Amino acid sequence: MIIIVNRKTTREQLDRLVTELEQKQFKTHLSKGENTTIIGLIGDTSVLDIDSIKAIDIVDDVRRVTEPYKKANRKFHEDDTVVDVNGVKIGGGNFAVIAGPCSVESKEQMREITKAIQKSGANFLRGGAYKPRTSPYAFQGLQEEGIELLLGCKEEFGIPIVSEIMDVSDIPFFENVDVIQVGARNMQNFRLLKELGKLRQPILLKRGLANTIEEWLMSAEYIMAGGNENIILCERGIRTFETYTRNTFDISAIPVLKRLTHLPVIADPSHAAGMAWLVEPLAKAAVAAGADGVMIEVHNDPAHALSDGMQSLTPEMFDSVIGQIKKYL
Amino acid sequence: MIIIVNRKTTREQLDRLVTELEQKQFKTHLSKGENTTIIGLIGDTSVLDIDSIKAIDIVDDVRRVTEPYKKANRKFHEDDTVVDVNGVKIGGGNFAVIAGPCSVESKEQMREITKAIQKSGANFLRGGAYKPRTSPYAFQGLQEEGIELLLGCKEEFGIPIVSEIMDVSDIPFFENVDVIQVGARNMQNFRLLKELGKLRQPILLKRGLANTIEEWLMSAEYIMAGGNENIILCERGIRTFETYTRNTFDISAIPVLKRLTHLPVIADPSHAAGMAWLVEPLAKAAVAAGADGVMIEVHNDPAHALSDGMQSLTPEMFDSVIGQIKKYL
Amino acid sequence: MIIIVNRKTTREQLDRLVTELEQKQFKTHLSKGENTTIIGLIGDTSVLDIDSIKAIDIVDDVRRVTEPYKKANRKFHEDDTVVDVNGVKIGGGNFAVIAGPCSVESKEQMREITKAIQKSGANFLRGGAYKPRTSPYAFQGLQEEGIELLLGCKEEFGIPIVSEIMDVSDIPFFENVDVIQVGARNMQNFRLLKELGKLRQPILLKRGLANTIEEWLMSAEYIMAGGNENIILCERGIRTFETYTRNTFDISAIPVLKRLTHLPVIADPSHAAGMAWLVEPLAKAAVAAGADGVMIEVHNDPAHALSDGMQSLTPEMFDSVIGQIKKYL
Amino acid sequence: MIIIVNRKTTREQLDRLVTELEQKQFKTHLSKGENTTIIGLIGDTSVLDIDSIKAIDIVDDVRRVTEPYKKANRKFHEDDTVVDVNGVKIGGGNFAVIAGPCSVESKEQMREITKAIQKSGANFLRGGAYKPRTSPYAFQGLQEEGIELLLGCKEEFGIPIVSEIMDVSDIPFFENVDVIQVGARNMQNFRLLKELGKLRQPILLKRGLANTIEEWLMSAEYIMAGGNENIILCERGIRTFETYTRNTFDISAIPVLKRLTHLPVIADPSHAAGMAWLVEPLAKAAVAAGADGVMIEVHNDPAHALSDGMQSLTPEMFDSVIGQIKKYL
Repeated sequence: MIIIVNRKTTREQLDRLVTELEQKQFKTHLSKGENTTIIGLIGDTSVLDIDSIKAIDIVDDVRRVTEPYKKANRKFHEDDTVVDVNGVKIGGGNFAVIAGPCSVESKEQMREITKAIQKSGANFLRGGAYKPRTSPYAFQGLQEEGIELLLGCKEEFGIPIVSEIMDVSDIPFFENVDVIQVGARNMQNFRLLKELGKLRQPILLKRGLANTIEEWLMSAEYIMAGGNENIILCERGIRTFETYTRNTFDISAIPVLKRLTHLPVIADPSHAAGMAWLVEPLAKAAVAAGADGVMIEVHNDPAHALSDGMQSLTPEMFDSVIGQIKKYL
Repeated sequence: MIIIVNRKTTREQLDRLVTELEQKQFKTHLSKGENTTIIGLIGDTSVLDIDSIKAIDIVDDVRRVTEPYKKANRKFHEDDTVVDVNGVKIGGGNFAVIAGPCSVESKEQMREITKAIQKSGANFLRGGAYKPRTSPYAFQGLQEEGIELLLGCKEEFGIPIVSEIMDVSDIPFFENVDVIQVGARNMQNFRLLKELGKLRQPILLKRGLANTIEEWLMSAEYIMAGGNENIILCERGIRTFETYTRNTFDISAIPVLKRLTHLPVIADPSHAAGMAWLVEPLAKAAVAAGADGVMIEVHNDPAHALSDGMQSLTPEMFDSVIGQIKKYL
Repeated sequence: MIIIVNRKTTREQLDRLVTELEQKQFKTHLSKGENTTIIGLIGDTSVLDIDSIKAIDIVDDVRRVTEPYKKANRKFHEDDTVVDVNGVKIGGGNFAVIAGPCSVESKEQMREITKAIQKSGANFLRGGAYKPRTSPYAFQGLQEEGIELLLGCKEEFGIPIVSEIMDVSDIPFFENVDVIQVGARNMQNFRLLKELGKLRQPILLKRGLANTIEEWLMSAEYIMAGGNENIILCERGIRTFETYTRNTFDISAIPVLKRLTHLPVIADPSHAAGMAWLVEPLAKAAVAAGADGVMIEVHNDPAHALSDGMQSLTPEMFDSVIGQIKKYL
Repeated sequence: MIIIVNRKTTREQLDRLVTELEQKQFKTHLSKGENTTIIGLIGDTSVLDIDSIKAIDIVDDVRRVTEPYKKANRKFHEDDTVVDVNGVKIGGGNFAVIAGPCSVESKEQMREITKAIQKSGANFLRGGAYKPRTSPYAFQGLQEEGIELLLGCKEEFGIPIVSEIMDVSDIPFFENVDVIQVGARNMQNFRLLKELGKLRQPILLKRGLANTIEEWLMSAEYIMAGGNENIILCERGIRTFETYTRNTFDISAIPVLKRLTHLPVIADPSHAAGMAWLVEPLAKAAVAAGADGVMIEVHNDPAHALSDGMQSLTPEMFDSVIGQIKKYL
């Protein structure tokens, strides 16, 4: 950590600060320039509150030079993490295709979609039972009943399932859900992350709409610090000034994450795009950029979907997208 | 609601769509131009899922022309809502000064700060007991013990208290907290919002870092739809490309909200600024723009605060800021 | 165009507005709902100033339903535009590989790089002679001398050249430059765009850092309105809150543009990434998403480049990237 | 400047880098931690290209610790700059009120508006003669004729005039324009900035839509480096994800600039807001935050303005705003 000291600081003030830092078991190195004095702080600075140091009157600025995440950091864990979901693997060269409707709606719908996506090559079924909706007046999901319908497909078709959790109190309903998804709006729901750290199921952690890559890795760190190191990161677009697309798919995040962390990284082109015709080029781009998997919304009747119809593919479109992607693997 | 139909649509396709919409009890009006046909939809469109309509093959675009929020909408509730907290009022000309430390740390700290801020004119004490922290390794707040310390000050000094809730399961600890704060990261924690809708305590709802004014009002609507209409909105800065300030304080949000909604609107210049010396000009600007109150971080020893030291004012600085603000009221 | 009228508008006010609009040769359609009245405006609304209509007291909002660009619009020109640069084609299935240093520095440097990139398969040489630099104290480019060095390579190696123009007054120096580049900071330098519309050389128009896709197409429209329809659009990243990458490469812009316009679209992964190791995955992603070409910075000695060294590839790295890309074409 | 070295760097590599830096006349200080080695670079680093250093293979990151601007930096020029326009002063306690129409349209319009704003207390007349318009089909301004009409008002009413320049080649027409405005889209038109540095007229430099405060000050530095130190900075809103307002008025920029630079800082609430009713609260907020002036669009007939009608005030509204502002001065 680098502490930039105000140039009007006296020798006594500087000595006092250095002494105080050394009492906290840090080593310090001073660099004095004409206009600036810099203190280099050596030791485990991840426990330091950067703002408290900035609040010291003689401090102009403070900057970290090492990443604040440890367990998620590739520097300390060079090999790819491979998440194993009842034998289906993600990461380290294993590609995941997760597909299914935005919302679980009925048994017939789920059976029809599961059959179709499995035939096209999907190895995970996704479906929303608890739905985060901007409006209190919109369909909020089938909830427990939705989880039951997913479990029915899991049993009938032997496909592992992925579903989103919205609150700590719902954890009991997710006991047999294979992969628990944390949605973009809950990426910094730290209480939820802590509780998920106590489970052993893999967590699919989506990026928040306005969260940096570093904050995202810190949220993974929350879960890992609790003991659950089975995390799959999922890029789904960030919020920018561009309004043509629902979100701006941050393709760079994929190779950047592959460099910074050992965790698998997948892409959700459906939410990033917000429009069905954009899913194919974005899915192909994600694979080309090194993604370990894709998550795609598929609905048997998009125009009558209870949510997100606009961005859902029909089974036929999905089959064609998967055919395209295979050329890139 | 306006539905823009693809120009290659046939007469039959168009008729089928119109019939389907009319069966849902909407009236329709057609406008046909050279390159575009538009369907105007008349009725309560707040229940319609905009994406499902966009998913219809002949639809190019869909746009709402009325706001999707009702209870929060000034159009249907012209008078200012005045939130009454045990006799201390906010809104409708009543100005709130909420002050206190980012984190509750100790009894001595809380007593000292409460005395100081009350003397300077604060009419609410704030303090964080449950702290949302980006890092799992950072101080997470005194939790239940912190709430106890706040309640002690409430009793001793007769000042209403404000504290942040992070999870539904903590609601029991907030029974005697006068105003329950929902932080930026939880603005779209819809499950929490729903539960808060069942309470009768006023809710201080902060704006999410990357949420639009409309989404913010929809989150207020969530709480109001549950029956709790005592909501105070709090602007605290949004995330933009500018990195000099911690966040970009969206000063325009204050007059915009005063126009769109009847709810009181306050400002948190401390979090927006991230630097103590910026709090005074931003607080003054917020008042000039029409805010119904300010929430300011005050700490007796900012350089040793356990969180957010950098942006905290000393009691002396706070006293000076309040002196400045009074000139603008 | 849709005009949303305030619900307190009287019958007389509405009639007056409708009459005024019809006098401007527009046809109008009225849709009256409970809370809103909408006027649909039919005719060529691209000449209307949207803000003047919004300024009318009874108008709540105005929205365009057709794109404001015409010549660039694929709706009115379905086939791909193929830009022909002395026989080297871009668009319509023809892939361009543009490579070279950020800044032209010397004859030796340019000869060495040109030989290398041409061997690897580049079909255009790029090099900056006029450099837009944030700091007045930074190297500003070799200017006329730089253009001379580029022309020397063009002659010796028979490769068409691309270079950036910064000001109308420099047009004479670009007489023999094959493709004239407009940089991100000049995307809305409308006077420059107008002058370029009078030339016949193809224009490579980069997206502005904070410009929407629609604004970008309007800038292309500026050039096309002047008579020069040989435009190549180049995505190079936009400015967002994420700071790990220099810019956020908007991969979606590529398929979106391919749908909205008939003009060729290429990608500049070097500027988007800002880091050499990111160029390969982003270039591959751009190709997978449908780009008609890539523009990549190559330098024989990146650590001693006079600008943008960090994001430049060595000739060896470039050769490897091109090898990777070819698999995707 | 701080250079963060990769932890796998050998002793020899490190020595070579240090030697190279010292040959460039910098002093270096080494701080070695367990995971990181940092080189502190002491000397005038403003001439160093940060990207070339980042391109060195053993370098992980490079960070400036001193501002890259000098002439604009308050550290080296503590007193406020007071810009004197024929006796009318801005800065150092002198408040400027600049008003007038977006576009100069006719002699009658200009005379009527000038009389009105002068009566309300404006001390500068603004009017656009050269108009940067997103669409090539929109009104582009009266150009030379517009400047003539402004000069007519200057002579008749004795009021200094402000008008926007779009291109180097128009400089001759601005000979008698008192203050030359550089618009947001030209903030990084470096060639124009250089030419304006050779003039002696004050330059009103607007912030770019997506430019940081530091980049803005670097653009001021461009003009100052040429010898013209009479610069007025004008905050006019930045581009963010929020779409309710045309731009997000960055109120914090005002106090931040007052701290970083000695140049006067004014606000343009009309462009930031994009809606007439928002101008008053934003103008008041700007004054409360410490602005040295405001620039406000006033039109005698906003609904028939040839540009920006929506955000223009009538003379009556303007008179009321000025009355409000005076209370805050």
